[in-house]
Amino acid sequence: MTRSIADIMRDRDRLLGPGVSTFYDDPVHIVRGEGVWLWDAEGRKYLDCYNNVPVVGHCNPRVVEAICRQAGTLNTHTRYLHEGILDYVDKLTGTMDASLEAAAMTCTGSEANDIALRMAEGMTGKRGIVATDATYHGNTALVSQLGRSNPPSVGFGLGQYFRFVEAPDSYRRPDPDGQTFAAAVETEIAAHEAEGHGFAALVICPYFLNEGFPQNADGWLKPVAEVVRRAGGLLICDEVQSGFGRTGTHMWAHQKMGVVPDIVTMGKPMGNGHPVGGVVTRAEILGTFRRGYRYFNTFGGNPVSCAAAMAVLKEIEDKDLVAHAGRVGEHARQRLFALLDKYEVIGDVRGSGLIFGAEMVLDREDKTPATEFTDRVINAMRHRGIIHSKLGRHKNTLKIRPPLPFSIENADLLFDTLDEVLAETSVHA
Amino acid sequence: MTRSIADIMRDRDRLLGPGVSTFYDDPVHIVRGEGVWLWDAEGRKYLDCYNNVPVVGHCNPRVVEAICRQAGTLNTHTRYLHEGILDYVDKLTGTMDASLEAAAMTCTGSEANDIALRMAEGMTGKRGIVATDATYHGNTALVSQLGRSNPPSVGFGLGQYFRFVEAPDSYRRPDPDGQTFAAAVETEIAAHEAEGHGFAALVICPYFLNEGFPQNADGWLKPVAEVVRRAGGLLICDEVQSGFGRTGTHMWAHQKMGVVPDIVTMGKPMGNGHPVGGVVTRAEILGTFRRGYRYFNTFGGNPVSCAAAMAVLKEIEDKDLVAHAGRVGEHARQRLFALLDKYEVIGDVRGSGLIFGAEMVLDREDKTPATEFTDRVINAMRHRGIIHSKLGRHKNTLKIRPPLPFSIENADLLFDTLDEVLAETSVHA
Repeated sequence: MTRSIADIMRDRDRLLGPGVSTFYDDPVHIVRGEGVWLWDAEGRKYLDCYNNVPVVGHCNPRVVEAICRQAGTLNTHTRYLHEGILDYVDKLTGTMDASLEAAAMTCTGSEANDIALRMAEGMTGKRGIVATDATYHGNTALVSQLGRSNPPSVGFGLGQYFRFVEAPDSYRRPDPDGQTFAAAVETEIAAHEAEGHGFAALVICPYFLNEGFPQNADGWLKPVAEVVRRAGGLLICDEVQSGFGRTGTHMWAHQKMGVVPDIVTMGKPMGNGHPVGGVVTRAEILGTFRRGYRYFNTFGGNPVSCAAAMAVLKEIEDKDLVAHAGRVGEHARQRLFALLDKYEVIGDVRGSGLIFGAEMVLDREDKTPATEFTDRVINAMRHRGIIHSKLGRHKNTLKIRPPLPFSIENADLLFDTLDEVLAETSVHA
Repeated sequence: MTRSIADIMRDRDRLLGPGVSTFYDDPVHIVRGEGVWLWDAEGRKYLDCYNNVPVVGHCNPRVVEAICRQAGTLNTHTRYLHEGILDYVDKLTGTMDASLEAAAMTCTGSEANDIALRMAEGMTGKRGIVATDATYHGNTALVSQLGRSNPPSVGFGLGQYFRFVEAPDSYRRPDPDGQTFAAAVETEIAAHEAEGHGFAALVICPYFLNEGFPQNADGWLKPVAEVVRRAGGLLICDEVQSGFGRTGTHMWAHQKMGVVPDIVTMGKPMGNGHPVGGVVTRAEILGTFRRGYRYFNTFGGNPVSCAAAMAVLKEIEDKDLVAHAGRVGEHARQRLFALLDKYEVIGDVRGSGLIFGAEMVLDREDKTPATEFTDRVINAMRHRGIIHSKLGRHKNTLKIRPPLPFSIENADLLFDTLDEVLAETSVHA
């Protein structure tokens, strides 16, 4: 029954259409997962240093059990009453500021951000959105405009409502107190107002994961939040990647960055891979949105999704995974700094908790991105059974973002292997 | 642990925000489901004559087993190779015309329609969309414009791209060969062209379920498909409700209506409640879309979703549920016609397979909608343990759309009870 890799690639083209992206020069055919480990069809084991969706580990028994139990009991929608969604939203909102009191549940982070932008339009009567120029917030017609890859001809003319500020970059353009970023956002807000769209919202990942997780100090978002409020707009924090304890210091990165957003969106790790997303906000904002759109989501907040999501929250709490992520992340950065002392090609080491990585440069003076080298390293690591990836504007930053149960021992295997690969890989191809 | 209904309602307002809709004057607190049966928190049993999402029955053992097995083995995304999505799409596309050869998988029908409209924009370079004036195609910023409930102030100005034709209505405005409908669509296409948007697509449910499932003859969509093609637009058939054998004669309602769409979208029943949706189309259309948008959906097509969806297809096939739906639906309509002979308030009986119902009127001459009466009937049925709903422009049509394993015996219980309720309910309040 098992196809060869070549047959799988051929069938992907035939059945999924041309141009479906894969990871690695030799894509991996994964068939099994457990905790921080993945196995391919030939039985080879990989250490997963990349996947944030299985936040409490691949096939986490508590989550799997919750899904199975609820799927075998009842799965229906929120037009019938069910306590699962109430217990979950109560617990979820309990992890945030008291003003973030209510939630709409969706199936994806994209749906969550699509709602959030409409909430901002509904609350402000304006349409101008500001984001960074190296971000991604999802795949609907509306929120896909927040990525920069769409040509202006597609997207029903929505591009006009989006303006972009240069993404923060602690390595190349230090902005220690966030004032430069705040001023840049202020400029784009003024441009929206001059164009007649007005200003509805700033939407950002509070730890800027797609932007390369710059080493911003705690509280760094306070100035920009001030600018947003002064302009009468909403602050939307997209915690799809940065939330659920990823940074190892707080449950939510906006807490680390010292702000209370108007709207928090979430997705990926929320159900450990089960399709669930959500928007947490003030009841007033939710009410305005529901009145404007009469929103209903068939699968959103169904009992199985809520059971999966509740198991994730409980697992994070019971296993103390936020503090664990902090401890292991600290160890990992120490190992990375040791590699920085050893290899000229490492220009910068950054991160917090279990999102961390190193920026690769051809020379430390000019900080010329070592993009191709980074690619070779990632492919070499994959062939040694270590899965991670790269990101950032220059695609030269190792992106390491494992499931939270990732251990000190796992980190040591990762960096022992990286040490070998860096020693063997030529900086110039 | 179990809250009272009053406490649940209070917590819904508090935690989900104001204005979350429920069914019935006395909302039902469902805790368990099996096949065509639901149970509330007090142990009361209900016959489910409404829910199409659990298409192969609530908690179908084959689907639950598939979800549990795969959730305990691996759940990851399509940037790694996995055969689950290939086997599924191969089987799914095998149920359609050869031109409908490839698929993009999503988590919801809304995401599927959001993609479909952008595919049409990408293929035609135009933005004008035509739909009926009594439809619903989902909840994203883009596709929510296809419902008529949005005020023009919300939705990022997308409303300009949508024009609506009067929904077909076989009872009040017969259009036996679909020529009137085709001409109406042609008029709206011309209006889009005059306004400068051009014409991108007609999007319709081929059995018009939200519109009240008019009794259109097989092949009824041929004239409008001709109009769409002549105008250079795409025909998008939204099979979210009408697909997967619902009509009891064909797997897909577009087949019943005699057309091969350019794009088919699906959702709700696809995973029997597990969040999965999809778009089936030509490889050329999929390729154009992927190039334009670099679309990726984190949860879309994951191994668990594919396992759930595959189990649904196999269950429909192995249990011969399309033919079963045809047989039971035929019996149900005979029972409904008997009630039509007995009760003046029933003005029309319609449907195919396991989507059927009766339109309630105050008088058969003027066909004045008996909207409030219909509401009382539905609430009375709920109190007798029968769950169904109403729909249509006048909200006076009983909507009966049970899981496909619904039996002749189930239908008899439904209509015996409906007979009692109609006998006891006063037409005038």
